[in-house]
Formats: sequence, structure tokens, C-alpha cells
Amino acid sequence: MATQLKFSANINTFNACADRYVLTGYGQRYPTDELIRRATQVEGLTGVEVVGLWHVNDDNLADIQRQVQEAGLVVTCVTPDIWAQGKWGMGSFASNDPAIRAAAIAEVKKSMRWAKRLNCEVIDLWFGQDGYDYPFQADFISAWERIIAGTQECADHLPEIKIVVEYKPKEPRTHCFVGTVGSTLLLLNEVDRPNVGAMIDVGHALMAYENAAESAALLQRFGKKLFYMHFNDNWRLWDDDLTVGSIHIVELLELMYWLDRMDYQGWYALDIFPYREDGVRAAAESIKWINAAHGLLDKMGRDKIAAVIAKSDALAASAMIREAMMG
Amino acid sequence: MATQLKFSANINTFNACADRYVLTGYGQRYPTDELIRRATQVEGLTGVEVVGLWHVNDDNLADIQRQVQEAGLVVTCVTPDIWAQGKWGMGSFASNDPAIRAAAIAEVKKSMRWAKRLNCEVIDLWFGQDGYDYPFQADFISAWERIIAGTQECADHLPEIKIVVEYKPKEPRTHCFVGTVGSTLLLLNEVDRPNVGAMIDVGHALMAYENAAESAALLQRFGKKLFYMHFNDNWRLWDDDLTVGSIHIVELLELMYWLDRMDYQGWYALDIFPYREDGVRAAAESIKWINAAHGLLDKMGRDKIAAVIAKSDALAASAMIREAMMG
Amino acid sequence: MATQLKFSANINTFNACADRYVLTGYGQRYPTDELIRRATQVEGLTGVEVVGLWHVNDDNLADIQRQVQEAGLVVTCVTPDIWAQGKWGMGSFASNDPAIRAAAIAEVKKSMRWAKRLNCEVIDLWFGQDGYDYPFQADFISAWERIIAGTQECADHLPEIKIVVEYKPKEPRTHCFVGTVGSTLLLLNEVDRPNVGAMIDVGHALMAYENAAESAALLQRFGKKLFYMHFNDNWRLWDDDLTVGSIHIVELLELMYWLDRMDYQGWYALDIFPYREDGVRAAAESIKWINAAHGLLDKMGRDKIAAVIAKSDALAASAMIREAMMG
Amino acid sequence: MATQLKFSANINTFNACADRYVLTGYGQRYPTDELIRRATQVEGLTGVEVVGLWHVNDDNLADIQRQVQEAGLVVTCVTPDIWAQGKWGMGSFASNDPAIRAAAIAEVKKSMRWAKRLNCEVIDLWFGQDGYDYPFQADFISAWERIIAGTQECADHLPEIKIVVEYKPKEPRTHCFVGTVGSTLLLLNEVDRPNVGAMIDVGHALMAYENAAESAALLQRFGKKLFYMHFNDNWRLWDDDLTVGSIHIVELLELMYWLDRMDYQGWYALDIFPYREDGVRAAAESIKWINAAHGLLDKMGRDKIAAVIAKSDALAASAMIREAMMG
Repeated sequence: MATQLKFSANINTFNACADRYVLTGYGQRYPTDELIRRATQVEGLTGVEVVGLWHVNDDNLADIQRQVQEAGLVVTCVTPDIWAQGKWGMGSFASNDPAIRAAAIAEVKKSMRWAKRLNCEVIDLWFGQDGYDYPFQADFISAWERIIAGTQECADHLPEIKIVVEYKPKEPRTHCFVGTVGSTLLLLNEVDRPNVGAMIDVGHALMAYENAAESAALLQRFGKKLFYMHFNDNWRLWDDDLTVGSIHIVELLELMYWLDRMDYQGWYALDIFPYREDGVRAAAESIKWINAAHGLLDKMGRDKIAAVIAKSDALAASAMIREAMMG
Repeated sequence: MATQLKFSANINTFNACADRYVLTGYGQRYPTDELIRRATQVEGLTGVEVVGLWHVNDDNLADIQRQVQEAGLVVTCVTPDIWAQGKWGMGSFASNDPAIRAAAIAEVKKSMRWAKRLNCEVIDLWFGQDGYDYPFQADFISAWERIIAGTQECADHLPEIKIVVEYKPKEPRTHCFVGTVGSTLLLLNEVDRPNVGAMIDVGHALMAYENAAESAALLQRFGKKLFYMHFNDNWRLWDDDLTVGSIHIVELLELMYWLDRMDYQGWYALDIFPYREDGVRAAAESIKWINAAHGLLDKMGRDKIAAVIAKSDALAASAMIREAMMG
Repeated sequence: MATQLKFSANINTFNACADRYVLTGYGQRYPTDELIRRATQVEGLTGVEVVGLWHVNDDNLADIQRQVQEAGLVVTCVTPDIWAQGKWGMGSFASNDPAIRAAAIAEVKKSMRWAKRLNCEVIDLWFGQDGYDYPFQADFISAWERIIAGTQECADHLPEIKIVVEYKPKEPRTHCFVGTVGSTLLLLNEVDRPNVGAMIDVGHALMAYENAAESAALLQRFGKKLFYMHFNDNWRLWDDDLTVGSIHIVELLELMYWLDRMDYQGWYALDIFPYREDGVRAAAESIKWINAAHGLLDKMGRDKIAAVIAKSDALAASAMIREAMMG
Repeated sequence: MATQLKFSANINTFNACADRYVLTGYGQRYPTDELIRRATQVEGLTGVEVVGLWHVNDDNLADIQRQVQEAGLVVTCVTPDIWAQGKWGMGSFASNDPAIRAAAIAEVKKSMRWAKRLNCEVIDLWFGQDGYDYPFQADFISAWERIIAGTQECADHLPEIKIVVEYKPKEPRTHCFVGTVGSTLLLLNEVDRPNVGAMIDVGHALMAYENAAESAALLQRFGKKLFYMHFNDNWRLWDDDLTVGSIHIVELLELMYWLDRMDYQGWYALDIFPYREDGVRAAAESIKWINAAHGLLDKMGRDKIAAVIAKSDALAASAMIREAMMG
């Protein structure tokens, strides 16, 4: 490999996580400066993600920039909040209400400008609220047209900032419009802007019964569109946001292999929800798993792996993995 | 049928619903007296459920009792909160910490006493936090022993109050110990107390790939243990808590048929999360669906249904349903 | 509506169905002429699908054409067999073996020629064996390149014959390359031939956690690419191939509505596996459900439905459906 | 550990596997003597399972016994065929037809007698066809009563033979009556015979969203009822019958740990379907994975594992696994 992976994490990893039952969170809540400080305690972490309005705004931007810099970190992604307030409940870019659509687009543009000022080249466009919960609740056509037009408008606002679309099949809506790698590529092709690409969140891919390795390969093959990666794990049926390496170790290995093979150059960012765990430990453990998987690929040998894949021999693949991990 | 169904709903149905993204809720939050008032606006609703500590406590019990009575309602269930505070995060009855276990049991007993004073015969024992998220995180044996012993202790505290165990395969933990109708019956047999039975939450059964009709039949056949029902709907893979009748209409019909056939005498309670909908409308619509399904069974004819089932003829069943619903 | 729907079914519907346990089938097996004769017994059925090699070949083509014609039927689709023989086990168009790839393409071209001679304009391209079962078993890039090139070659062979790609997330492989509506649209865009479109098999869409109505809308919006429909039902997690109307009635209604709204002009074909049922009855019952759903939309009122959708009001939608079906 | 695990496999592992598309199988079909011969080629395999009627019958029993003995193997399980012929399609023990029920029970008793003569102490009772496919198709109560009575009758026929109930949530029916570990324990308690216990098929447990380690612990805790184990793997949503170690390595480790801890004394049998793989290689690879997992537990240290579990510390568990496997 030789290449050193670059790790990032949303600073919210270090805050109390909440769910719909324990709304105040399972642990302690911290101010942003403390979250940044805690990020520095994670071995191997050199980048952080921030959420617009939650962590950065027009007033505190210079402060945050200084804090991040002094902490020896860089901002790798700014995520506009178009999904965490009640007003987005019926959608953001795809809302039936033109005022909400305009507000969502404005929010994204703000995050793009903040990203630029923070020397961060990526913003994360997650259409979490754009979907539906019930039958006969959605006009699929106008929804897609609005999402396409809104994304184009954002892309043209600051072409030097990369917009990464984060797909997810469901939650918080029971159905999200942009839910799979295939529909993401459809969207990217329709949007047709060089600064609009995709992120794979591994857990979202698992929920969609995707193999993230395959999804990564497709995004790179059809336009070099894999701009960013979110790592986590789950039990395949829901976005449990577990630490990396909890369950799907073999698929993690396969993903890491294809990221290298398809020349992925972006960050290895964590998107975990350590509800009942310490965030610093959870992030450190996740990074160790990713590094261990990366190292194991070298031990297995990239050429040997390529040869095994080329023959589609499942038992040779199994033996190769077993010898590397259990030998 | 002749029998009139009795409907209840948790008064929280009429409050803003929150999820892990929109923690402050999608709508407006109301005080308890307003929740009770809103319950009276739902046509057909005569019962309400309350949650211990959230809605009732030692100080306000007489007040709540009066408000409910003046509203022309009865309290059908008190649910102890052993799952909505950070301190329960690592479990309640099955916690490794004896102090937490004792606190959880004490909380349940308090709810039992409140129930008694409210002339309510049921409390809902949901072990939502008793489970695990990760491999190698649970000692299954001690967990079950603690749950059995704790439930027995509660049952013996006030034998005139019915404890209904509400099973659910997952959420908030990725795995809950008491997750299916089968493991619930195992628990009930081990606990072996006449005042301990089960509730079926229809959505939880769907998540577990159960047919709620079958689960109801089993609980009644093996000990008359179906004490309570929670109605809602989902897309089968997650506890979406949709309004009744959204998706699984045929299974709703089958469930209603078997509840009658197995002589279920309890409440038809709603457990829905109308995140983006008005709670009063959502409850009213759910009740209309249940009543419509109940009425449709009469139209189809109970004898005819029994005859179709006895022959296991899927196409006769399909035609019977089609003619009743689409005719 | 006014429009009368056109119904078809694979003649194999009328044969014994087998699974991996009962390989000889649950019922009686019939020769092709008897299968055609049985198709005529299904009220409302005017079309049939045949499978290449199973039912038609160079030698019997004239015979079959005459039999179908005398039966008063038309052939609506010819399905090449590139998935039901051991030799396709490691893939057809995406096989690592160039001889197998060539054989698969030749098989498809044969079916195209047979279709032309049968006055049938559609062949069904299902890449059932093109996928993988295990990690590290697939080269995703070469697989997609082979599928694209092979499909283009077939499309150019007889441009007057429509090739409909039938996507399915899994089975017989644990992962199929062309598994969702999104990846299908990606494939169609890359293939870029006017005579290559898609089929939605409703059960395959359900397995992929798609709403078939949404999938249909997308295929029509992005290129008028919905050429054909396969109807059946399942319990959402597997391709159970149940009769139509068994479970997902509301989603059936929504699908029928959007097919009309998006101007779908093709056949309403059945793809069911009545393992333990009589095929003639199963097909007739399925057609009755589709017609009933279609009729119900008129009863509900297309304008009213459009208005409800436009407002995204889940409870208005629920009431509208309830009144139409349960009223 | 010290203990050496005992491995078995159904001899059908070495035959061509078929599915509902490729009914003649993906590979070559062999006679029984060749299947036995091929079993001897699998390193570490000392036991075989046979299926009644398929491999053994009254006429060939002595022959088979001699062949197995000469091959240096023992028969570990006889599986009566009450699920692989069309006549069982509407059920075996739970059939509405008393003649079918009697025939199924007679078939099981025959396998019990064959088992006895083969010095095999286990027969596998899998109610694969006892369930339903459609709503309103099953009388759950009479089904359970028939299953209980039939199992008791078999148990009393030859008390020295162990009957192991193999649960599975679905397939070939969309719903099987005995589908989870909980409903299995319910059945065992009702049957109440010392020679009736359970088998866990790991893939069936995964399909049911069970953690097989937890299921094993429950079966042992509540009556020492885990009599047999079937190993395989899948993608969690369907009984893919993959080779062991393909996907769920961490859960395999946890299962192996709990089997030891709960004093499981039975066979480690393979139940895999190597559709496109060589059966001998597939079995050998599976055994290597199980042995490797067993060895890894020693490397991790049983005491350390117990200590980690006792603390419910997910991150300590993750680090422990990572260091053992990736270190």
C-alpha cells in the first residue's frame, strides 16, 4: 500500500448520542470547543466534519477555524442541516413549499461558503427528509425535478466546492427518494456538474442490500464520482451506526480493496453513533479496524487478491481470507 | 359481532413526535392536561394510556385521575419508564448493576400502584433497553435470570394488577432479549404468575416476521396470555409506527378475525408515532380502519371465514377478501 | 379509465411449480400444447409468454405459432433461457468464459428471431445468473462492461424487437449485478439503444424495498423506458411469487394509478408461482385483483387522487383508500 | 480447549445442488456409494448424515451401513423425508389430511428405526412444509396441536432415539409454524419428552434475526435441549446455505464460545449447498473455518472473553476480536 489513509470524524461523534426514546442523549453533552478538543484525543484522526448551524455559523466561523487549526486538524466536510429541524419534516429540496425549498438551498449555499472559508472542499448533501412515509403521499416526478434543479443551483453557486450526495434508503422517512447507488448515479447524471459526486455511507449501503465494494466500483467506473466515504457498521437491516469492524469484516476487507483498486483518493471518515460508548474510544477503535483491514490486504497480497477475483473462485477467496485472518 | 370494540391510545400520541434527528419533535409539545383534552377529540376513543413519570407521579396522581375522569375517559394502561432515560442505557431488569436493577423494579412497582389508584388493571412491561448492540456484549443466561426474577418480584407486589410483557426484536438496542412471541411465552412460563401475560404490538410482530394473528392465537392457546393489544403499521422491517391500515390490510383482517375467535377481551389500543401528522386525526383514522376491518369480517361472515381457513385454500381466501373489499 | 387492460401470463404458470426441495414439482407436469390450452381457460387472459428452448425452438416454432393463434391468444414476450441450465451457473453475459458469453448472446438473438416470427415485440432479458454469491468473487467492472456490450450487440441484431431488462436484487445468486431500478436506468443509459428498456417485476421491486409505483414513475420520467410489467406479490423479503392481491393491496393501487398517469401502454403480465395452487385459478384470481384495483381507482377518482398526492397528506390518502375499500 | 470437535455433513453436500431454476442441478449427480466415498475425501470429517428414502431404505440399509463403516465414518443423523415430495406440499404433521399426517409420522418412525440400526442416535425433524403461504390459509391452533401430538407419538416410539426439531422461519412455505428458537422451546415444553430436543441451523437463526450464540444459550439454559448443530452461513435474509466463515465471522466466534460454555456435546455438522462449488472443497473449507474459530477462542483466552462479556463493554470486545484476528 505505502499510502497512509486519512481519517476524519464528525465532531458530534464525541457528543452524547440520542435516539427517539432517550431524547436528551445517553451521555454528556459538550460545547463545540470541547468536541474539537476530544477529537484530538483520537489516535490517527487528522480531520473533522462539522454540521452547519450546529457547529459553525457566520458569527463563530473564524473562531472555529482557529480552534480546529490549533488542534492540528483540518475540516474535511461541512454538512448543511436540512434534516434536523421540524421545518424540514415534509422535505427540503423536494418540499411542496417553494419557501422551504428556497430555504434549504440557501442553507446549502451557506455551508458551501463556510466550507470554502474553512479550506474544506466538500459539503455533504443528505436528502434525509426528502421522501415519504405512506402510500399515495409522494409525487415522485416533481420530487426528482426539484432535487435535480436544486442540486444544480447549489453546484453552480461555488463550483470549486464539491457536493457529495449521501444516499440512504430510509430514515427518517420510511422511503427516501435518493436511496441506492443506482438512483444516485441517475441523479448525478441528470445534475451533470463536475463538482457533484457521491458519498458511500457503508451502513446505508448495507441497509440497501448493497455490497459497498460494488457500489464504490460503480461510482468510480461511471464518472469517477466517489468523492467521500463514511464508515460504520450495522446488522444489515437498519442504520445502527455501530463502530467499524463490529460485524461485516469480510465486506470491509473487500471494500478497502476496491477503494484502492478504483483509486479512491478521499477521506476515510467515521459516521458512528456510540450511544452507550465513549466517543473517543469508539472512534479510535474504528480507525484501528480500518487500518488493520488495510494492512491485511497487503499481507494477503493485492496481486493474489486480483487473481482470486478474476477466477470467481469462492473457495479460494474463503481460504485466502481465512489464512490471513485466522492463520 | 355485536361486540363493540374498546379503543385506547397513549396520550403521547397527541404530542410532538421526535426521532434521533429532530430531537425537539416535528410538531408542538403540550402539557399533560392538553394531551388529555386532545384525546377527547378523537371519535370512538374511550381509554388512554399514560407513562409513569412523564404523565403521572405521586404528586399529580389525584389531579390526573380527576382530569381523565372529567374528560370521560378511563386509564387502560400505565407504562413505567424503564427505557427513556440515559441511566437505563445498559439495561433495566437485566442490567449488570444491581442498583439499576433495583431502581427499575421499584419504578415498575410504582407504576403498578399508580395503576391501582387509577382503577387501571394493566401495566406495560417493555424491556426496550434490555438487550445488546454488539457481539460479545451480553451474558444471555444472567440476563434471562434477572428478567425472570424481576418480573416475578413485580408480579407478587400487587397480584391484582396485570403485567403485560411487550416484546420487540430490536430498538433501541440492536437486539432485545425478549423479542418474539415464542421467547415471550418462554418467559411467561418461567415467570409462572397468573397476573403476568403479554401484549402484541402489531408493528413489533411485523418486524419479527410474525403474523400477528398467529402470535395472538398462540398466546391464547398456551395459557390465555394475551392481555392487551397495541395497533399500528409499518413497512415490515422497522417499527415505523404508522397509522393502522396503511400497508398490511389483509393481515389486519386476519388478526381481527383471530382476536375474536380466540376470545380476546382486552383493549384495542393505538401505539402510533404521527411524526408529521396531526395526532388527533391520526388516531381517529386508525380507529376507523380497525372498526372497518371488524365490520368487514361480519360482511364476509365468520362461518365462511372459518370454512375457508379449514380448507387451507389460498385462492378461496383471496377471492373472499377481494369480494369483500373490492367488490 | 375506459382503457381495457391487456393481460398475459407465462404458460409455465399452468405447469407444476418446483422449488429446491421438491424438484419434480408440487403438481402435474404438462406438455406445451396442454399449457396453451389451459391458458385459454383463464378469463380475461389474451396473451401468453413463452420461454425459449422450453416452449419454442427452431423445430416447433410454426406449430406453436399455430396453436397460440388457434387458441385465440397472442405471444407477448419470449424469454431466452440464459439462467436455467447448469452451464449458466457462473453467469451468462457477464461470465468470465468468452464461450459462455457468446452462447448467451446467441441464445438471446435466437429468442429475438423467434419473437419476430411470432409477431411478438418483446423479449425479456433477465440476468439471473450474472452476479455473485460470496465476497471477493466478482470483478464488478468487467461484469458491467460485458453486460453493456452484450446488450448492445443484441439490441443491434434486430432493432424492431424490444429488449426489456428485468432487474432483481438476488436469486439465484445472492447478489445480482442488475438489481434495482436505479442500476437498471444506469445500464439503459450506458447501452443507449431505443429498443432496450425495462420491465418491473413487482415482486423484485418489493424485495429491493422499492415502491413499484415510484420505480415505474422513474423509468417513464427518465426516457420512457418502462416497456413491460410482471405482476405478483410476496412478503417483501423474498421473491415468493404469490398471486396478485395477496398482501400489498395499497401498493398495488398506487402502482396501477402511476402506470396510468405515466402512460404505460404495455401488457399486464403475470409472473406467479402457484406451487400448491391450480394455475388456472391462480391466474384468474390475479387478473380479478388487477381489474378490481383498476376499477377502484375510477371509483376513487383520478383527479381526487392527484389532489391528495399533491398535498402529501398521508391521512387524507388513508381515508380515501379506506372509504373506497372498506366503505 | 483440548476437546476435539466432531464434524459431520449430509452426504448430499457432495451431490449436485439444484434450485428452482436449475432443477437438474448445477453439477454432476452421483449415486449414494459415490457420495459416501467423496465424504471420505474431506479432511476432518468423521460423520455423515443421510436422508431417509433418498439414501437409506429397508432394502439397502445393511449395504449402507457396511459402506459407511468401511469408509471409516459414522452416521450422525438420519433425516426423514417429510418435505421433499409433492404429497407433503400442504404439510406433514400439521396437514389437514389425517392420512398424510399418519404417513408423515410413519416416515419419521421408519427413520428412527433406521437410525437405531445404524447406531445413530439422532433424527432430524424439520417441519419445512408445515406452515402457510397466504393469509387466511392456516388454522394455527389445530396445526400446533397436530405437531405436538405427532412429535409425542414419534418420541414414544423409540425413546432411545433423539428427535431434534430443526426450526426455520420460512422456505419452502412463506411462514413455517416452528420458526424461531422461542417457538421451538414452546414446542419442546409442550411435547415434554426427554428424547425430544432442538437443533440450531445457524443460517435459519440468522434469517430469524437471531444471534445463534444466544439461541444456543437459551436452549441449554431451559432444559439442556440443544442436541445438534447445523453450520452454514448466509447474507442474513435468506437461507443461502453458504460455506461457513463466508460472512458472519464474529457471530461464528461468539457461537463457538457459547457452545463450549454451555457444554454442548454434540456434532458440528455442515448443512451447506455448494451450488456452484465442489462439495468436497466446500466442506473442507467450512471445517477449517470452524476449527480456526475454535482455536482463536483459545488464543483470545476463555477467561478473558468471559471477563469482557461480564462487563458488557462493546469496545473491549471489539479490540479483543481485532487483536486476535487482525493483529
